[in-house]
Amino acid sequence: MRIAYAQMKISAGHPDVNTEKILRLIDEARTQGADVIIFPYMSISGTMISDNDLNKKSALNDLRYWMSEIISASQDIFVIFVAEYAFLPDVPQFAIIKNGKFIDERKFPVKIKVALDDEVFRGKGRLCLRFISVPFSFDRRFFDEEINRPVIHVGCVGIQNTGKTVYTFDGGSAVFNSRGEVVQVAEPFKECLNFIDLEKIDKMPALELPKISEAEKIYRAISFGVKNFLEQIGMKKVVVGVSGGIDSAVAAALYTKVVGAENVYLVNMPSKFNSSTTKNLSEQLAKNLGCKYFVVPIQESVDWTVKQLESVGFEVSSFVKENIQARDRSARILAAIAASVGGVFTCNANKAESTVGYATLYGDEAGFLSALADLWKYQVYDLARYMNEKIFGREVIPQGIIDIVPSAELSTAQNVDEGKGDPLRYDYHDYLFRAFAEINLSPEEILNWYACGELEKNIGCAEGLVEKYFPTAEEFIADLERWWKAFKGMGVAKRIQSPPILAVTDCPYGSFQESQNGWHFTKKYLELKNNLLAR
Amino acid sequence: MRIAYAQMKISAGHPDVNTEKILRLIDEARTQGADVIIFPYMSISGTMISDNDLNKKSALNDLRYWMSEIISASQDIFVIFVAEYAFLPDVPQFAIIKNGKFIDERKFPVKIKVALDDEVFRGKGRLCLRFISVPFSFDRRFFDEEINRPVIHVGCVGIQNTGKTVYTFDGGSAVFNSRGEVVQVAEPFKECLNFIDLEKIDKMPALELPKISEAEKIYRAISFGVKNFLEQIGMKKVVVGVSGGIDSAVAAALYTKVVGAENVYLVNMPSKFNSSTTKNLSEQLAKNLGCKYFVVPIQESVDWTVKQLESVGFEVSSFVKENIQARDRSARILAAIAASVGGVFTCNANKAESTVGYATLYGDEAGFLSALADLWKYQVYDLARYMNEKIFGREVIPQGIIDIVPSAELSTAQNVDEGKGDPLRYDYHDYLFRAFAEINLSPEEILNWYACGELEKNIGCAEGLVEKYFPTAEEFIADLERWWKAFKGMGVAKRIQSPPILAVTDCPYGSFQESQNGWHFTKKYLELKNNLLAR
Repeated sequence: MRIAYAQMKISAGHPDVNTEKILRLIDEARTQGADVIIFPYMSISGTMISDNDLNKKSALNDLRYWMSEIISASQDIFVIFVAEYAFLPDVPQFAIIKNGKFIDERKFPVKIKVALDDEVFRGKGRLCLRFISVPFSFDRRFFDEEINRPVIHVGCVGIQNTGKTVYTFDGGSAVFNSRGEVVQVAEPFKECLNFIDLEKIDKMPALELPKISEAEKIYRAISFGVKNFLEQIGMKKVVVGVSGGIDSAVAAALYTKVVGAENVYLVNMPSKFNSSTTKNLSEQLAKNLGCKYFVVPIQESVDWTVKQLESVGFEVSSFVKENIQARDRSARILAAIAASVGGVFTCNANKAESTVGYATLYGDEAGFLSALADLWKYQVYDLARYMNEKIFGREVIPQGIIDIVPSAELSTAQNVDEGKGDPLRYDYHDYLFRAFAEINLSPEEILNWYACGELEKNIGCAEGLVEKYFPTAEEFIADLERWWKAFKGMGVAKRIQSPPILAVTDCPYGSFQESQNGWHFTKKYLELKNNLLAR
Repeated sequence: MRIAYAQMKISAGHPDVNTEKILRLIDEARTQGADVIIFPYMSISGTMISDNDLNKKSALNDLRYWMSEIISASQDIFVIFVAEYAFLPDVPQFAIIKNGKFIDERKFPVKIKVALDDEVFRGKGRLCLRFISVPFSFDRRFFDEEINRPVIHVGCVGIQNTGKTVYTFDGGSAVFNSRGEVVQVAEPFKECLNFIDLEKIDKMPALELPKISEAEKIYRAISFGVKNFLEQIGMKKVVVGVSGGIDSAVAAALYTKVVGAENVYLVNMPSKFNSSTTKNLSEQLAKNLGCKYFVVPIQESVDWTVKQLESVGFEVSSFVKENIQARDRSARILAAIAASVGGVFTCNANKAESTVGYATLYGDEAGFLSALADLWKYQVYDLARYMNEKIFGREVIPQGIIDIVPSAELSTAQNVDEGKGDPLRYDYHDYLFRAFAEINLSPEEILNWYACGELEKNIGCAEGLVEKYFPTAEEFIADLERWWKAFKGMGVAKRIQSPPILAVTDCPYGSFQESQNGWHFTKKYLELKNNLLAR
């Protein structure tokens, strides 16, 4: 039995587009001599659709219409798909079609077993099918070592989004022999129709799967996600504000690779606080990438805003001036340039900044998509080095940008030439924030570990950093509380209004509910804190 | 048996604050001679908390600690509450406590029956308790006419939020006699401890409940919501951009009533397109309200931005200039003023604009809260008239603002003195958009109704409007498709980054998932369209 399995690109919410492709794939499979073709989970509608989209009669009738087109196209070939069952209760959930009608599983030439994601196969079939519905970022590979039967995994490629989160789907289609060894694997993130002969599976040699680094995995997912998201919203031109810092440099390099240098507009927007160092690094970056480069200073506009406000009686503190600069860059300049060229501008925030809201709303927190906001700062650096080495094969991101102290350059307190920068010590805070955001720990757990000297080991940062940055318990606690309050306070308020985030983990911001309820410290935390401070 | 039922204000995510209040209420009930006190649903933790907040050991232990404080405080009084059961499986879901321990329901002096929201009471108890967990905006009153037993409803007051949506809770606490008549009712939106003697309930006369208008209901909920949200985030000073239009005028009046004129900063930000008419109306509004009033023109800054962009080679179209104005007002001026005074600035968008994204991101779509974004334009007008008549007792919102054509005044095409304004005909589009957003209809249903002449009746707008605005099917369809695409396209993209919305209905934007998948027209819609156009 010759089996075709389609690692199809699904366009969520577009049954017309998906059906057209399904019909083409059925034709191709038939032409290539397949007896059966298998489609990924919910390939007509897609899985991530708006809550109300299918919840109406006209939409369900439409789905039935497209399904009927597929049913009509099943001449001389078995077509297998998991129907959009939640919405069409009268259609079999696991559908086998041939010659224009649903057929009973028992009439299929071999016994089939079906499972979704990591479900256990019950009983045994001659052919086991595993439908994969989870995105790439969930990072689950489902092996089937104890099945004693061949297993085919079928997944889709493409992107799907839930509004606040954009997920990439890498497919994950593969064939396993009865010993649980991979004998055929579809290229990740690539739409393709694959063929296998059921009888040959157990005679095929096990494949050695290539090991890839974390940076490579991230690069693949992010570049694929960005490319597909731009296509989906019909945009090609991308405006990136470049500061001479690492995040914007990585964004610039990434988008250049995805849409081509001719479609990327790099804009440096210096105020009086921006050093020649970072201005030169920005220019060097643009030269290396071959992108259009613009310098649009903001000092006059910032001064004018301050003057206008003071002229009607407001006092403008230096902290307020910092955020005026950030908003001037994004909401005044970048948004207008993007609109002028008929494109979009990017949000370059990383996950550490997003955790504690260390970004200005309508300023550097703005943009059409946050491609890097599910990456910790160290992962942004890793990605920079990876792209220089493997993607460009030369130093497109200047080493100076990788080496310089991270700084928003919004005041003299952040003078990079004096080695001053952000209030975040990323080699420690990356890990503290990951404990908050991904491991779901509270200050109570953190302080407990601190008290017994096990913090660094448990959160995964380098040994000695806690002692180095916080000589006393008082300093440690002040830092912990500062960022916990930021995480649960302004951080939440800012995330509510931030752009969609491209998922790399299974817990990007936006993928779970966050209520604007402020912070809380547990009774035990407060007791422990008092004990530590009283020592 | 003397029963106290606490219409308590719950602070979601703050078990320490809630427990302190619960202990005080227990004391008060005991002092006032109550035999039993009943608390609202999940009164220790609140219901709308961040997804991960209770999903950790330290948080559950903390909850247990606060629960133990309540248990210890139950000397000589029965304390009844619905435990935070989803998180503490070993604690009885419906808990009765006395003298420091959980007691069995069967040891309570009378038989109790419990229901949540609109659940049916099974069997009969001498005392029936209905715990109310849904917000005000769900607008469900639960009557118990066929119970044949007294029923006590217990609900909380306050606000709770899910990030994108802020819900108000009006309490809804009341006592019904065996005939299902209300005999006691707690004041909506007010925290209070109420008492009733179980034996007297059936002897009490039925209360005549006051009828209140929709505008009054909305005003109560919104003013309560805004007040409590500001308190919750610790803000008092409010900056409102006032254009001379209806939305900003209603926002200005609302916030003035809530925080007092001394805390409200009204800012008019004219460009060359703003008429003397609207400038004068803004000033009149500020005088009527007694608020601080500032005029901060944006023309110089807009011209400067255009000049800067052109100087580096970009072409700035008139459409791009429109949005530059909107962002200049919010992101440059209002955000900076709010930061200067240590306050917030408001988003004044209504639900019609939000539906189709007729607002500029980082411009008039920005702000700390959208207090009016769950109201259709006609409801904003109703609210204006209601506030003038009933809340202020005089014309604080000038009649000129109520009468003028709605206009963004961003170009000469929107000259109000020539009667020109927004592309929306609110008397029709309010109802079309409500059909999209609240009744969940698609263009297929709309076009079907249009074809058989039943559209106006079915969507609820005035008769004759369709014919008036769209003399031909072609014009009708062009309008329908324009706004459907806007609703499913840019509208979604903008809503993802818009501020939290104060809920008035049970389907404000942000309370359900919207994927950025673009628009789709069903096969049947396209057929019907072709038929209509071929006529």
